[in-house]
This record gives sequence, structure tokens and C-alpha cells, in this order.
Amino acid sequence: MLIALDAMGGDFAPEEPCHGAVLACSKNPRLNIALIGDKNKIEPFLEEVDSSIRSRLRIVHADDVINTEDSPSLSIRRKKNSSLVVGFEMVRSGEADGIVSAGSTGAIAAGGVLLLSRIPGIDRPGFGATLPVLNRPTLLMDVGATVRCKPINLYQFAHMGSIYMKLFQGVEKPSVRLLCNGEEVTKGDDVITAAREMIETSDLNYQGYVEGSDLPKGVADVVICDGFSGNILIKFGEGLGELLKDQFKEEYANHLLPKIGMLFMWPAMKRVLGRFDWEKAGGSPLLGVNGTVIKVHGRSKRNPISFALLGAANFIDKNGVERIREEIAKENINDNI
Amino acid sequence: MLIALDAMGGDFAPEEPCHGAVLACSKNPRLNIALIGDKNKIEPFLEEVDSSIRSRLRIVHADDVINTEDSPSLSIRRKKNSSLVVGFEMVRSGEADGIVSAGSTGAIAAGGVLLLSRIPGIDRPGFGATLPVLNRPTLLMDVGATVRCKPINLYQFAHMGSIYMKLFQGVEKPSVRLLCNGEEVTKGDDVITAAREMIETSDLNYQGYVEGSDLPKGVADVVICDGFSGNILIKFGEGLGELLKDQFKEEYANHLLPKIGMLFMWPAMKRVLGRFDWEKAGGSPLLGVNGTVIKVHGRSKRNPISFALLGAANFIDKNGVERIREEIAKENINDNI
Repeated sequence: MLIALDAMGGDFAPEEPCHGAVLACSKNPRLNIALIGDKNKIEPFLEEVDSSIRSRLRIVHADDVINTEDSPSLSIRRKKNSSLVVGFEMVRSGEADGIVSAGSTGAIAAGGVLLLSRIPGIDRPGFGATLPVLNRPTLLMDVGATVRCKPINLYQFAHMGSIYMKLFQGVEKPSVRLLCNGEEVTKGDDVITAAREMIETSDLNYQGYVEGSDLPKGVADVVICDGFSGNILIKFGEGLGELLKDQFKEEYANHLLPKIGMLFMWPAMKRVLGRFDWEKAGGSPLLGVNGTVIKVHGRSKRNPISFALLGAANFIDKNGVERIREEIAKENINDNI
Repeated sequence: MLIALDAMGGDFAPEEPCHGAVLACSKNPRLNIALIGDKNKIEPFLEEVDSSIRSRLRIVHADDVINTEDSPSLSIRRKKNSSLVVGFEMVRSGEADGIVSAGSTGAIAAGGVLLLSRIPGIDRPGFGATLPVLNRPTLLMDVGATVRCKPINLYQFAHMGSIYMKLFQGVEKPSVRLLCNGEEVTKGDDVITAAREMIETSDLNYQGYVEGSDLPKGVADVVICDGFSGNILIKFGEGLGELLKDQFKEEYANHLLPKIGMLFMWPAMKRVLGRFDWEKAGGSPLLGVNGTVIKVHGRSKRNPISFALLGAANFIDKNGVERIREEIAKENINDNI
């Protein structure tokens, strides 16, 4: 299995993607990784790598990079020699089995649509993020591929999210909820109302609206929203987590009592914080395109990148793309709307 | 000063609003409160109250209640004898100086517009929520009055939010940011782009887009968004906070080490969590209507309700409504757009 890794994407590229590739290879012996980017910048990070792993890493040179400031679809069309476009072309040609990138969210979504094309029956793709919430994993979708949605987009996300949770979490009949500003059907806007009506009359296991406050409680297998809402929500959660961690660190550094307390609290702290560890979630799959595409947070270091690579390998092993394509075709989800 | 308190609004009505009123009166000796709602249900909670405070509380009977399931504008028009409408009528007639409610967010916004009317120059009102973030208070607006916005609404929120922070936090030239799914100007949607262009060409101290992850860091005095985004965001923050607290409580209950650790950690915990205490924020003012209207969270118990009442008293003392009206008229904010 060969996975294309955009070695130039993210805040710590190419160093952390390179280390992430090594880590992933050490955990999955069937994994081969193509590191795509500036050969001269990548090579130094592979010099010390053990030969058994080095032999499964190859460098594919690409001298351009798509930045977060670039227009997503324009840069996908024009920057033919960027690490991201070269990676997508490897997936399109069948040379690579999937692609992982910590680069621009918009460009990854645009690359998926423009270079791999959408699955028949799907109008827009969506990124699914597995939230580390209480009791069970919850897939939040979309978290940034389709910023503003039509009702049909949310409806299709609900189907793809359900298939994904059935396939990857073994949930027989995944419960689906729509993110809303209240639980009552009078809440939301025209788009959410129309999407709710479509989902209600489908054979999905729809369970109503969910408010932001209930989201961390693990009240559904799949929570659907537009890419704007999903994006601000997961980023806000990350920001709060980081802030809290910083605050405790500061207390720990400046006061004696917390230092002693922490010795006793540490196992509990580790247990609690471990339950909310987004780094282990394995990246966000772009669902709805003809190829395995996993996005990982731009601020990711080696660990989350390695988990995303392992997540991509799992997606490929389970024929994720093919299974979603089959289910969407079989269910004719757009027939009765 | 007389403040109308919707004694039937919120999850713990009428008990907690009644206790909240007593608390607020004990802290502000100039405060008089009209408890509006079912006389028979309210009276039992005032029986034990000290006479010096009891004399400043009066019960105004109203036998109907607006529920969160009711359509906001329909119920404001039809439920003439609901606690909320009776309270708004007291403000409209000048009998009360302001109103506080833990009831339906939509109905409070609709009541403000329909019964008190909008301030000239303002198309839609917005709820401002003071976030207890790092370094400085940040006003997030709107958090639920105008679910989906036109650019002009966001533009006007930016002006009202700035005036509010100047008036109540003493910030000379409040910095304003727009909540977005990225920092680059290519992010957002058509509404956000148009609002940005309007704000950029105004004399507001505009500082760019802000992502969800930076919001907890106190990067701006005023952060503008539509009511849907603001609502899901603050509720998600609350939900995460509650979950974290529950998790630590569970650890504390089931393990010995955290029990010992907590003894040492407690002062630090209190310092850290005290910095994020939304209960002390004093409720969310509805800015843009002709009257002092403060919404407090539906799940509020006596403490946050008392802080909202004290916040309303402060707003009235500083002539908040009059000052916003003056500034909006003076600046002719809609002239050059």
C-alpha cells in the first residue's frame, strides 16, 4: 500500500510530516509512503532513519506549495507542480492508494472535487471529524469542505456520515442529528428546516436537532452541520483545551501547592484529558470523492500526522471509497426528494 | 429603580428567579424588583424573606407562560398575559426601567423588537455575551437574536458592540473582529465578505477575521457573528466545561489519589476556573431596542440570575440605551454604505 503524504503542508512542514511518516511506517509494516515536496528540504530529515523503514519511504519532488492564502480552486488548477496537486495526481493515476495533507483545508477539498471528482449522487463533499466525546465517538460533518450548504448537501452528508460510522465504528443503525441553535423544530433557518424534512422522510435513524451544549455528551453517532459551523466549533474546542492546559501549566510553574497536588492528580488528569485527545482521531476523511483523502490539522506535529496516515491505511484496507459509492448507488438517496 | 423579572422563565422557575431577586436586592440597595408570573407559585418562595428586602419585591400576576417550543413572534403577539409580555409592557409604559428573563431567547428578541421597537438606524437587534476569556473580556455578538444575518446586520452589531465596550469596559477604541473559518480574506461566505468591506471602510477599529481557536485567547474586544454561530459556540463552550467538571468529579469520587491531590490543587483549580466563570458575566444585553433587556441562560440558578439583575441595574444607571441611541444617531453609521 502506498500513501501520498503532502510533506509541505502544515505549520511544521516538512520536518513533522517526515517524522510522522517514519512513525506510521514503524507501526504498520505494510505501509509505504511517498513524501511529496522539496527534495532538498525533505532529505535531511530522513538521513538518520533506520534502513528497514527508509526503504518504504520515497521522495517525490515537487517545487511548488499551495498556501492557505491561495484561492483553493485556482491554486489546484494552476499550481500543477505543488506538493498537493502532485499527490492528488498520484491518487488519480492509481499510483498511490490515498493522500494525507496538513495543508489548506479549502485546497484539499477543491483538489478532491477537481482532480478525483465526486462520487455519483453526491453534489458536494464533506470533511468528517471524529470528536472524542463522552461514551462514544461522534462524527461531526462537515468541518470545512462546503462552507455554506444547501439542504441537499446536508442530506447527503447525513447519508455518508451514517455509512462511515457503520463501516468504521461498527454502529448498526447510526443515530443522526442536525446541529441547531435549539432543540425545537421552530429553531434553525430555512436550510436546516428543509434538510430536516428530507432526512426525516428518509430511512436514516434521525433523532432530532442537537444543541452545542449537548454535543460533548456523545448524544449521537453523526452530527450534521455546514462547513462554517463545524469549523468554528472544532477550532473553538481546541482553543479552549489549549487555554485550559496553559493556565494549569502556569499555576503549576508559579505555585508550590499545585506542584504537590499534581503528583497525586496526574493519573486522573491523564485519564480525563486522554478521553478528549483529538490527536488520536486519525485525521478528517473527505467523504464524497473518488479517492482516500485525509486532512489533518495544520498545527499537527508528528503524532497526529502518523495517526492520520494509519487512519488512511485503515480506510484503504476497508475499501472506504468503494463502500460509500456502492451504498449511495444502492440506496438511490436522491430518488424521493 | 424597578426591574421587571420574568419569574416564569428558565428551567428552574419560579424558585431560582425568586431567590435571584432576593440576592440581587441584598447587593444593590437601590434595586426594586417586580416578580412577574403566577402569584400562587411565587409567593411561597418569598415567605421567609427578610422584611427590608421583601418590601422591595412586588409580585405582578400573569397567568400565562411563553415556552421555548412556542413561535417567538406569534407568542409575543398572542400571549398577552404571559409573564414575558407583561414584563415588556411594564418597560414600554415606563413603569419598569428594564427587564430580565431566563426564558426563550427567540421570544425575548421578538418582544424587544415588537413591544419596545428598534433604535432608529438599527435593522435587527443582537444579544451580546461577555466571554470570560484570557486577558480581557470579549463581547461576542450576536448569540441568538438574529439567527441568520445580512451584511448590514453584522455591520450594525459591530457599531453597537463597540459602543457597549467603550461604555461598560472603558475601552477607548475597542478592537473589532469578524468570526470566520480562517484568518485569510478568502475565507468566509458572501455575507461575511460584504460585512468585512463595510466595517473596513468605517471608522471602527477593525482587526481582521478571528478563528474559533483564537477566540478564547482574548484577541479582540468585540467579535461579530450571526446568531446561529454565536449560539452554537457559547453553548458548546458551556457543554465542554460541564463535561470536564463532571469528569473530574467522577475521578475524585472513585479514586483516592485525586482526593489527596485535590486538597493541594484546589486553590489553583479555583483560580483557573474562576477566570472562565460565565455566571458572573451578568447576562446578555439585547442591543438595538428601546429598552434595557437582559437575557440570562435558561439553566441559570439564583447566582447568574442575580448577576443579570445587577448587570441590568448597571446598564440602566449608565443610560445604556440612550447612549447607544445617541451614538448611532451621531455617527450616521448607515450613511456611507
